[in-house]
Amino acid sequence: MNLPSVVAQPGMPDAVRIYEVGPRDGLQAEKQLVATDVKLEFIRRLLAAGLRTIELTSFVSPKWVPQLADAADVVAGVDLDSARHPVLVANERGLDRALASGVREIAVFASATESFAKNNLNRSVDEALTMFEPVVRRSRDAGVAVRGYISMCFGDPWEGPVALAKVVHVAERLIDMGATSLSLGDTIGVGTPGHVLALVERLEAAGIPRGVLAMHFHDTYGQALANVHAALTAGITEFDASAGGIGGCPYAQSATGNLATEDLVWMLTGLGYHTGVNLEQLVEASVWMAKHLRRPSPSRVVRAMASTGDRGQA
Amino acid sequence: MNLPSVVAQPGMPDAVRIYEVGPRDGLQAEKQLVATDVKLEFIRRLLAAGLRTIELTSFVSPKWVPQLADAADVVAGVDLDSARHPVLVANERGLDRALASGVREIAVFASATESFAKNNLNRSVDEALTMFEPVVRRSRDAGVAVRGYISMCFGDPWEGPVALAKVVHVAERLIDMGATSLSLGDTIGVGTPGHVLALVERLEAAGIPRGVLAMHFHDTYGQALANVHAALTAGITEFDASAGGIGGCPYAQSATGNLATEDLVWMLTGLGYHTGVNLEQLVEASVWMAKHLRRPSPSRVVRAMASTGDRGQA
Repeated sequence: MNLPSVVAQPGMPDAVRIYEVGPRDGLQAEKQLVATDVKLEFIRRLLAAGLRTIELTSFVSPKWVPQLADAADVVAGVDLDSARHPVLVANERGLDRALASGVREIAVFASATESFAKNNLNRSVDEALTMFEPVVRRSRDAGVAVRGYISMCFGDPWEGPVALAKVVHVAERLIDMGATSLSLGDTIGVGTPGHVLALVERLEAAGIPRGVLAMHFHDTYGQALANVHAALTAGITEFDASAGGIGGCPYAQSATGNLATEDLVWMLTGLGYHTGVNLEQLVEASVWMAKHLRRPSPSRVVRAMASTGDRGQA
Repeated sequence: MNLPSVVAQPGMPDAVRIYEVGPRDGLQAEKQLVATDVKLEFIRRLLAAGLRTIELTSFVSPKWVPQLADAADVVAGVDLDSARHPVLVANERGLDRALASGVREIAVFASATESFAKNNLNRSVDEALTMFEPVVRRSRDAGVAVRGYISMCFGDPWEGPVALAKVVHVAERLIDMGATSLSLGDTIGVGTPGHVLALVERLEAAGIPRGVLAMHFHDTYGQALANVHAALTAGITEFDASAGGIGGCPYAQSATGNLATEDLVWMLTGLGYHTGVNLEQLVEASVWMAKHLRRPSPSRVVRAMASTGDRGQA
């Protein structure tokens, strides 16, 4: 089995965290319903492979996202002490359900652009933020951490380029209302490293430190890992990824969406980070899931490693 | 059509060169013979898309690489004034044929590891270098520039990790015998950014400046662009890539080998480089070639852009 040589790069953060979004972000757009048992087995396999932050599901209206109608059942099927297990929450109703399920971390989903806010949340950017205010406040009052996702930070399929100031505006609002961390999403995968660095600097100039930022890159145009590398040199320490790269972005009309956790683990391992992830086990989990989804994983690492062993791809 | 925002990264080189290897490296391992006319049309399309350094073919024994038995016909079919058009040369016999064809740049192919030298060249590392000495000397005497490829610089499928000193040894020999540039190959795609930076530094410490180095990354494990990004921050200005990502590496048992030129152009464009490449035209050229090869391009950019337009993938 091929492996990277371990050669650290000077000036990088001491430790990084992988924030696994496969069970939620990876599956939410699947048209074919995935059985709750399959989701739970997927999560068990991700835990067994060593992932320690796994976003489980989303408490949204089953009318919007039928795939995640079993949110409470998924949470009930997971040992919440086994790792960090955030869930997405769409509004106060979702928060009620999430808090009742016992989770200790939630995430809300904002947009940097009006077009995506309108299309995804059926609200303006600021209307959506106002809707999140009581969600964040009540969560914090309950001792629950709140991650604020911001979509379309690097480009928008309807609007084209997205000004840094738009991202800063939404980031400031989320932090002001009490969000404990922010995940900056390149939802259509157009961003490149200079853009990443410029956004981090602009946010810091606005008083939002690097330590609260996570990066959520998509690999639609193959840029995700280069952007992770740039963000690492800027001191970012949390990166979203999806096991096997599941979860395409319908807005970019591509099968390739989320950065594959395996590809990220490969780079981090080479850079000397102890991710705690067993790459072979993770690849096995992704190949297993790919068989259920009936299409091969778009992850480069999964494809290369699955072709060299007996873990035949779907 | 989605595009990256243009945001330069401070401290990067002012200009970079894309060294297109598709017609040679991309096609050399194709089992199905590609007609000379198809190769020439591919090269014409790459030129029309704006590429200005295109390696045309390889003057090797047709017994070794039947796909490139038409090397002289390919060179004869190209206007050598239209761009830089290097060719690969295996030995003095190949050099004779190359010089007779009128080319002004050649490349030789060395290995950092004994295993690959034995498997690919049927010689030891040093025996191969000795074989190249008269090739390089005669080329330079004829005013012909010589690029020295070094394979397996970051890992070897038989030997595993490759010590930096092995690469330095081969690089020194090639420069001493007169090579004008070196292309450092991550033939199995295992390298990560810290390793890239360490190698550049070690070579510089040995008296080999960054200005003579090109990087030849493979995307087998999805690391190629992150490695390009790291190399750019180290002042490297020449990058090998293959239109559409054609040319898998049989030693890594993966369909994904060469970094796709489109994915590289996307990042360089975002970083503010004027590559001179029309990305849409390049994608069209790769989709056209993919149809001839009867399999879809592994390039992320080609897949995403071809799915949004009328350029249906093979």
